[in-house]
Amino acid sequence: MNKRNIYFDHNATTHIAPSVRSVMSRVLKSYWGNPSSGYSKGKMSAQIIEKAREQVAAAIGAHSHEVYFSSCATESNNALLKTISTHFYPDKNKIISTPIEHPSVIQTLEYLKTQNIDVQYCPVDSSGRVLLKELENMIDDKTSIVCCMLANNEIGTIQDIKKISEMAKAKGALVFSDCVQALGKIPINVKELGVDYATFSAHKLYGPKGIGAWYAKISCPLEPYIHGGHQEEGMRAGTESIHNIAGFGEACRHVNKLVSLSIKNEPFKKIFINELKAIKSDIIINSPIDNCLTNTINLTFPGIGSGDLMKSLDYKGIAVSSGSACSTSSNKPSHVLKAIGLTDEAAQESIRISFGSKTKHQHIRYALKVMKEYIEEIKSEKLNSPVKINRPGLNYNR
Amino acid sequence: MNKRNIYFDHNATTHIAPSVRSVMSRVLKSYWGNPSSGYSKGKMSAQIIEKAREQVAAAIGAHSHEVYFSSCATESNNALLKTISTHFYPDKNKIISTPIEHPSVIQTLEYLKTQNIDVQYCPVDSSGRVLLKELENMIDDKTSIVCCMLANNEIGTIQDIKKISEMAKAKGALVFSDCVQALGKIPINVKELGVDYATFSAHKLYGPKGIGAWYAKISCPLEPYIHGGHQEEGMRAGTESIHNIAGFGEACRHVNKLVSLSIKNEPFKKIFINELKAIKSDIIINSPIDNCLTNTINLTFPGIGSGDLMKSLDYKGIAVSSGSACSTSSNKPSHVLKAIGLTDEAAQESIRISFGSKTKHQHIRYALKVMKEYIEEIKSEKLNSPVKINRPGLNYNR
Repeated sequence: MNKRNIYFDHNATTHIAPSVRSVMSRVLKSYWGNPSSGYSKGKMSAQIIEKAREQVAAAIGAHSHEVYFSSCATESNNALLKTISTHFYPDKNKIISTPIEHPSVIQTLEYLKTQNIDVQYCPVDSSGRVLLKELENMIDDKTSIVCCMLANNEIGTIQDIKKISEMAKAKGALVFSDCVQALGKIPINVKELGVDYATFSAHKLYGPKGIGAWYAKISCPLEPYIHGGHQEEGMRAGTESIHNIAGFGEACRHVNKLVSLSIKNEPFKKIFINELKAIKSDIIINSPIDNCLTNTINLTFPGIGSGDLMKSLDYKGIAVSSGSACSTSSNKPSHVLKAIGLTDEAAQESIRISFGSKTKHQHIRYALKVMKEYIEEIKSEKLNSPVKINRPGLNYNR
Repeated sequence: MNKRNIYFDHNATTHIAPSVRSVMSRVLKSYWGNPSSGYSKGKMSAQIIEKAREQVAAAIGAHSHEVYFSSCATESNNALLKTISTHFYPDKNKIISTPIEHPSVIQTLEYLKTQNIDVQYCPVDSSGRVLLKELENMIDDKTSIVCCMLANNEIGTIQDIKKISEMAKAKGALVFSDCVQALGKIPINVKELGVDYATFSAHKLYGPKGIGAWYAKISCPLEPYIHGGHQEEGMRAGTESIHNIAGFGEACRHVNKLVSLSIKNEPFKKIFINELKAIKSDIIINSPIDNCLTNTINLTFPGIGSGDLMKSLDYKGIAVSSGSACSTSSNKPSHVLKAIGLTDEAAQESIRISFGSKTKHQHIRYALKVMKEYIEEIKSEKLNSPVKINRPGLNYNR
């Protein structure tokens, strides 16, 4: 068999771009001095960090002194939500968020509930869009933060953050937006979005894993979560991962090109949906048609377990996701799909396909061919078996 | 001038070993799948992480399931101290530490004081050695953690952690040891040391920056500090920095060789001290003679500002430290030197020299020559000037 290598899970992570690897390799070899050291070798490392900070700032429309590096977006989300909520406690002890946030936000918020923070989730519609009227009613003068992601990682829904920011400002609340999945896929300007805080990760836009950043608007409260040094203006201690930071900067240098490439995925999405519907007419598209990431499709295949489908595709060299990578191993139905109204069963029959900068028409063709074969096989199995087939795992030998 | 490139600040950070860079490069290119993803590409990444975990565990004498990766030792120190103290609060709300810990420990402990944790510092002698009799008296049944580093980063003092562990156990307290500066310089076996928790960093032993680990003995309390995913058994969420983790593993693979190389630095240390004393007899050696890292010398040069000396050496291509890198830019006298009895003035006339795996006799000779010239110059300046010279900064043109 011609074993292909087709990667359709760019929302989970991306390969590292050759130019990023090249920059990282140079830094690893030559710029390893401690950026905190006063001698030349240290100062050269510090300069590399500041250059990367400017590159990240440029990619999100911020000033470079509003950008702070952390080890990942999960750390950024933890650091900001925990310290800001503490800052406003007890006067403003309410945080309003959505039920479709990334686990690093949801689980942090659930932790904050145990610390006497009043966390409320504003419902979303069947497209995953925040119900703005309800949100407006929920924000009050006890609300410290309104926390809403820019683009959803599982279904691709893009929220109207600008509108949400206006609503929050009107009631004196700050706005926090997890922009991890949006960076490199849609244009981002934090000033235009009106947010006070935003978080980002390098490894979703062809940068390295192990480096994130946050944006904090000047004059907004900021306190250290990791204590112990003056790094990142005292807001994030620890010797900087210079090569990772430089790699993040380099990845951000290509952000406009990446956005263009992501838009080029839109026709693939249409082909994919139409051809799959032709094979299996009861397929449900969970991603919205409008205001959705152009690279992301989430689909339910009634009667087909997503884990089995994922494994079968993997066997044929195609990588897709049966849930967010951060919750894959839990085997629980996706909280995002449940929030938009899917049953547990339907959620467990759903996969996410996310195209990337190198996705080509031939990849789509091959994937559709393999999926068609799999669906036909399931159909014939069902025809030959009057009882419901229990498929605990894939038999790789068939 | 023959501009040399001599690095005598290995306690601040190290270059990245070629074999480590090679492993990292391979991972960056080929093993970028998300370790949480269920398909082959993800599983291959997960395997790389587990291999590295075994390599780190082997280097410290632990079981691999007692090793957790984090973004740096500073994060490890924060995560463990904050979550363990919360775990035991309020029943056991006392932490005993030493005044010569790394800033990432001291500043975390100072933060914990604001959270109603009773933090007490056991004094040290003029060699930086913990006063064991006093420590024994301080530990009581309210003590949750005794926190003491294995080897000091600024002066090199190695503590009798085994004895400290015995004392703590006798009173039912857990032992936490920051082993960052010791790994790769002296043999470490966490089981023999008897500690319950220990922290490590890759970039002190020729590994990459941006990756740390902690050891937590099985059955000891452990709670997540960064929430949001199942990574590291749910104890540290966030997509793993696979290349950094693999680099840490590779660095640890050479730990025995590094320890041997570090021992080879001992004669250099003696040459350095003897020859400097011959040039300037009032030099004070702040590092202890026994039970000290073989690569580390901390010296006071009475009448010579450490910042100026550091800059002057830098100009001649020699990197030394005028304090711990993590507190260099604060311009405050070292808390370690003050704790062992130095005045503010003496502390600001002290530098740290730390040799590494590639330090050679010719480097020592060149550095001594440059230092001799600098000291002679200062002496002649003082002879020609009856008033005390104020040296706010170095004139690079002289």
